[in-house]
Amino acid sequence: MHKQISSPQNVAIKRLLQLQEKSRNRKKEGVFVVEGIRETGLAIKGGFSIQELYFCAELFPAEEISSLTENAGFQPDIVEISSEVYKKIAYRSSTEGIIAVFKSKNTPLDDLKFSSEKPLILVAEAPEKPGNIGALLRTADAAKVDAVLIANPKTDLFNPNIIRSSVGCVFTNNVATGSTAEIISFLQRQNINIYAAALQSSKTYSEINFTESTAIVVGTEATGLSEEWLKNSTQNIIIPMSGEIDSMNVSVAAGILIFEAKRQRNFRI
Amino acid sequence: MHKQISSPQNVAIKRLLQLQEKSRNRKKEGVFVVEGIRETGLAIKGGFSIQELYFCAELFPAEEISSLTENAGFQPDIVEISSEVYKKIAYRSSTEGIIAVFKSKNTPLDDLKFSSEKPLILVAEAPEKPGNIGALLRTADAAKVDAVLIANPKTDLFNPNIIRSSVGCVFTNNVATGSTAEIISFLQRQNINIYAAALQSSKTYSEINFTESTAIVVGTEATGLSEEWLKNSTQNIIIPMSGEIDSMNVSVAAGILIFEAKRQRNFRI
Repeated sequence: MHKQISSPQNVAIKRLLQLQEKSRNRKKEGVFVVEGIRETGLAIKGGFSIQELYFCAELFPAEEISSLTENAGFQPDIVEISSEVYKKIAYRSSTEGIIAVFKSKNTPLDDLKFSSEKPLILVAEAPEKPGNIGALLRTADAAKVDAVLIANPKTDLFNPNIIRSSVGCVFTNNVATGSTAEIISFLQRQNINIYAAALQSSKTYSEINFTESTAIVVGTEATGLSEEWLKNSTQNIIIPMSGEIDSMNVSVAAGILIFEAKRQRNFRI
Repeated sequence: MHKQISSPQNVAIKRLLQLQEKSRNRKKEGVFVVEGIRETGLAIKGGFSIQELYFCAELFPAEEISSLTENAGFQPDIVEISSEVYKKIAYRSSTEGIIAVFKSKNTPLDDLKFSSEKPLILVAEAPEKPGNIGALLRTADAAKVDAVLIANPKTDLFNPNIIRSSVGCVFTNNVATGSTAEIISFLQRQNINIYAAALQSSKTYSEINFTESTAIVVGTEATGLSEEWLKNSTQNIIIPMSGEIDSMNVSVAAGILIFEAKRQRNFRI
């Protein structure tokens, strides 16, 4: 038999709720919470270590747990929860009966492995909205970029809203974080060209040769990139706009730039 | 002196709240509500007819009203509201003290005027999330496409969340709506090539010549485009993806396609 929890007041359930809601709690414990069958499978596949698995037997049959966790390095603690408890901790409306706790991992920049000789990297400085971060990660997955680097992160990546809006792409990408200075220095040491999306003194993005080692760097919609990026870039680049308002969503702008690079690379990895 | 309303219980205020919240009420009255100085200016500039202007004197000085409405075809009814009333009807946190009611307009497809000889048109079928519609309209403005056509709309465009997430681009674009059948027939009559974004039997988007009259058509993330589009397209097109999940945000995909067309057109209008 598995351990069972049937009261929403149980202290373990209160802890789970806090882990979902508070970045501070996730950081303190070094873990994060994943909801859903597919997402849990992607996190395991992405090399994250599963610590605890909560399942609601009415929604997810106990006998399927072993196939869900078969590729995990080791077996998590398994806890059966009542549907009352599940309803309290489940975030989403589509209820699959699975909540898992994973160990966070923070890939140091210097440990990043690139699959291509001339890597294509997406860098986002201080992105804020979970929806935008999710869309960036989805684009990065679709383009199979070599890495996504988040400079000066404003939030931890394992915020439930980011996991959800990335449809699990937070687990399929090679993601690392660091300060802007650390990431610039890393890219320079690796001889990767830095193309900073900017509005001034910039070259039209489609005139750039993105077939060499490339980092495409985007800032926030409100303030753009910091001076540090603009000063240290190989070239600042711009998407020419001709409208009334000329304001593009940051994840749309990143998608246009990344796929121009993919086009130049004949959509090869 | 202007007409004044100081009670949040006033029937005119209750009506405004209903207009913000309910598409049905907007439709019945044939009006919509705009909040903010910039947005109100953009709606006037976009040729929408302003009917009523509510201002909170503590936030917006009465003497500036005339410059706000100077380009309007005619002067709206002007109502001064107390800050208590304003707080009740204001949607946004950044409070500028201006709420306006505009008359809706629905451009019939056949009345659309294109500024280019070989127009570039963005078509979205049944888009649902206001955030995505807003991002599509921002991209369309930045690219200065000739028109944005919404096929089988799920919501009216003058939903406050769309106005907000489009940062006013709902007023700067040439927008029309219609059923999928009506829009296909319109595009065919105008000899505009239809390129439907699809996942099967499709050509890589960058192999298409977008310098001729072009409509780029995107569907929903959940179900893609309807068979009607796929069957009636000049060519179905695909963005090659090579990731684990291969799911792109619809507004990102539209941005990539529209800006490939812009690139081929040397970013000229």
